[in-house]
Amino acid sequence: MSRLIATYLVNNDHQLAQRAESIALGLTVGTWTNLPLLEKEQLQKHKGEVVLVEEREEKGIIVISYPAINFSADIPAILTTVFGKLSLDGEIKLLDLTFSDELLKAFPGPAFGIKGIRKLADAHDRPLLMSIFKGVIGKPLRELEQQMQAQALGKVDFVKDDEILFENELSPLEKRVPALKKVLDETSEITGKRTRYAVNLTGRTANLKDQAKRAVELGADALLFNVFTYGLDVLQSLVEEKEIPVPIMAHPSFSGAMAASSTYGISYSLLLGKLLRIAGADFSLFPSPYGSVALDRNEALATASFLTETNQLNRTFPVPSAGIHPGLVPLLIQDFGKECVINAGGGVHGHPGGAASGGKAFRDAIKAVLTNQTLEEASLNSDELHQALTKWGSTEVIR
Amino acid sequence: MSRLIATYLVNNDHQLAQRAESIALGLTVGTWTNLPLLEKEQLQKHKGEVVLVEEREEKGIIVISYPAINFSADIPAILTTVFGKLSLDGEIKLLDLTFSDELLKAFPGPAFGIKGIRKLADAHDRPLLMSIFKGVIGKPLRELEQQMQAQALGKVDFVKDDEILFENELSPLEKRVPALKKVLDETSEITGKRTRYAVNLTGRTANLKDQAKRAVELGADALLFNVFTYGLDVLQSLVEEKEIPVPIMAHPSFSGAMAASSTYGISYSLLLGKLLRIAGADFSLFPSPYGSVALDRNEALATASFLTETNQLNRTFPVPSAGIHPGLVPLLIQDFGKECVINAGGGVHGHPGGAASGGKAFRDAIKAVLTNQTLEEASLNSDELHQALTKWGSTEVIR
Repeated sequence: MSRLIATYLVNNDHQLAQRAESIALGLTVGTWTNLPLLEKEQLQKHKGEVVLVEEREEKGIIVISYPAINFSADIPAILTTVFGKLSLDGEIKLLDLTFSDELLKAFPGPAFGIKGIRKLADAHDRPLLMSIFKGVIGKPLRELEQQMQAQALGKVDFVKDDEILFENELSPLEKRVPALKKVLDETSEITGKRTRYAVNLTGRTANLKDQAKRAVELGADALLFNVFTYGLDVLQSLVEEKEIPVPIMAHPSFSGAMAASSTYGISYSLLLGKLLRIAGADFSLFPSPYGSVALDRNEALATASFLTETNQLNRTFPVPSAGIHPGLVPLLIQDFGKECVINAGGGVHGHPGGAASGGKAFRDAIKAVLTNQTLEEASLNSDELHQALTKWGSTEVIR
Repeated sequence: MSRLIATYLVNNDHQLAQRAESIALGLTVGTWTNLPLLEKEQLQKHKGEVVLVEEREEKGIIVISYPAINFSADIPAILTTVFGKLSLDGEIKLLDLTFSDELLKAFPGPAFGIKGIRKLADAHDRPLLMSIFKGVIGKPLRELEQQMQAQALGKVDFVKDDEILFENELSPLEKRVPALKKVLDETSEITGKRTRYAVNLTGRTANLKDQAKRAVELGADALLFNVFTYGLDVLQSLVEEKEIPVPIMAHPSFSGAMAASSTYGISYSLLLGKLLRIAGADFSLFPSPYGSVALDRNEALATASFLTETNQLNRTFPVPSAGIHPGLVPLLIQDFGKECVINAGGGVHGHPGGAASGGKAFRDAIKAVLTNQTLEEASLNSDELHQALTKWGSTEVIR
């Protein structure tokens, strides 16, 4: 029978078994003990079951198995069932959800996934490299063109919009995307590498599909999406739309409102890992364990693991972000392997030689790690990497 | 100039002014101090401003004013701006948002509001009364019909679906709504009072409008909606849809994931109060301060206040819920006034005389308070109220 298993962190009131039973019944059939035998037989397949109860000093773990027959196979119904009313019940955190294979079949997963993105970017056997526009609000389009050119000259694989760039008079989608596409096409003539542009998908939910299609027509190579201010099911619909033929990059914007507390809300690994992959994000950006805005290392690794573990869905590219500079590349590859996107803002733009040199420094750092050189060794043949290491060191974290 | 003012609760690191300035710039123009004068003039209208910084022992308050020119006038853009990346930045809570009148004009607010709902329910100068189906998962439609009849015999104004009732084989929308409408029509012949039915709107986001229209065709008098598992902007689109001619009731399901912590996420009063009204919920259900699942009393009062304060939008009916029994009616009316919906599940169904008697006990309690009688006095002429007070007392909270 298709089931969904939820793991919760609660306060240990030394009555965990009772609390667990009350959740398992309260969120499914309501009552049980005093029901007539016939009714019990009818309701058995709808009843939540306590799988595990474990005391961990002042905290406790409760694991409940919910029959999938109780809800429709969509994320809103699932969240309402396992953490709807329960989220209001004091200090409780939803740590994980385990989907039965049958239930998982209802979800698309990434349309492109790691494999499709590597093909698109023609980048294999190495981490991808992405950089981000910096401080573009209120700036004329020409400034964005200059930033784009410098980033593309650094031969990064992707450049993404700032997630706080919305429709605005100075750089609206209709002007911005063709102008920046032109820059990318022109720069690729120089470099031989076509950098790809992830355009911020914004506006009202009801208009997103049209906006996405228009962005693609205008030249978007991918879409950036602030999924948590919209809804995971909205992302899923975008993924399922055949007429949006580009990968979708999920930004973690607003996810901290649900995940930042260690004792309330949803775990980052479930939200930015498992649920984003199920809903179909091709990329998942999340705070790296190294920057000023940092995720706990275990949580970051668990997030990446959920994004890339083998199951029936395509794999999502982990994008550990924030505070990344070239000196961190060995650590990033050690922690996340080759199946990740190295994503930097300040670590590209803040390079003493500018963004083009920033990109080169990153590429040389990646090459070094993949050929078992130290960054120091590689910097002997790379001025750009040398300058980056001089500025940021190889362990220091930039803010 | 149109602006949006955000109030945050942060840890007091005794460098609040610096932190505030860094937020105000980081979420708008990026940098400031070292910019050339000309550029400062160009960027001035895009720059976030620190309005207030206040130390409160171990905590601090930071108030930032964001120019509305920076974002499109939709809730996803607003949340991304004021609490996107910032939500990931450790222990920080978004307490409040203040919309300029101009910005507020972009939002519909409730289509019906308190006034429209009173007209619809033909219920004036008193709190409305609502009851909830109990334990209907896995139950045949006949059980729902019986529950509906008993509740309607108690002459409640509204009966709402359980929020965890999704499309299912036993009581699908297509069968459930006509069957329960029939019960309500028949029962109104007996009682003279037409109870109204709020139907749970569920399924994929892309299908909600069609599903809502179908529910109304089948006889839904209102819609219940788990808005926080979808998105506030999704609610707004439903409200703006002219072909959904019934009020929408926002359920707080999953809102605890964003609001339950006192130091992370968003305040309940902002989420279940101000934002729900702006997005256009006609009713907002929230935990009462009295039950087992309880909101802090000040937070519950602030929620109701945001829902009903005078501004350019229609007012939203506050529905303080969970743990409500007839003995709490004086306290409810003292705290929330007549402009609220008294909403009970166990306090109706658990009445010794059944749900019909439960409804009557509530109605007699409401009548008593509005005519300045004590419940004890009123119970001399109401067996149902007497039984309720005997079971639950007049201050005791049921679980």
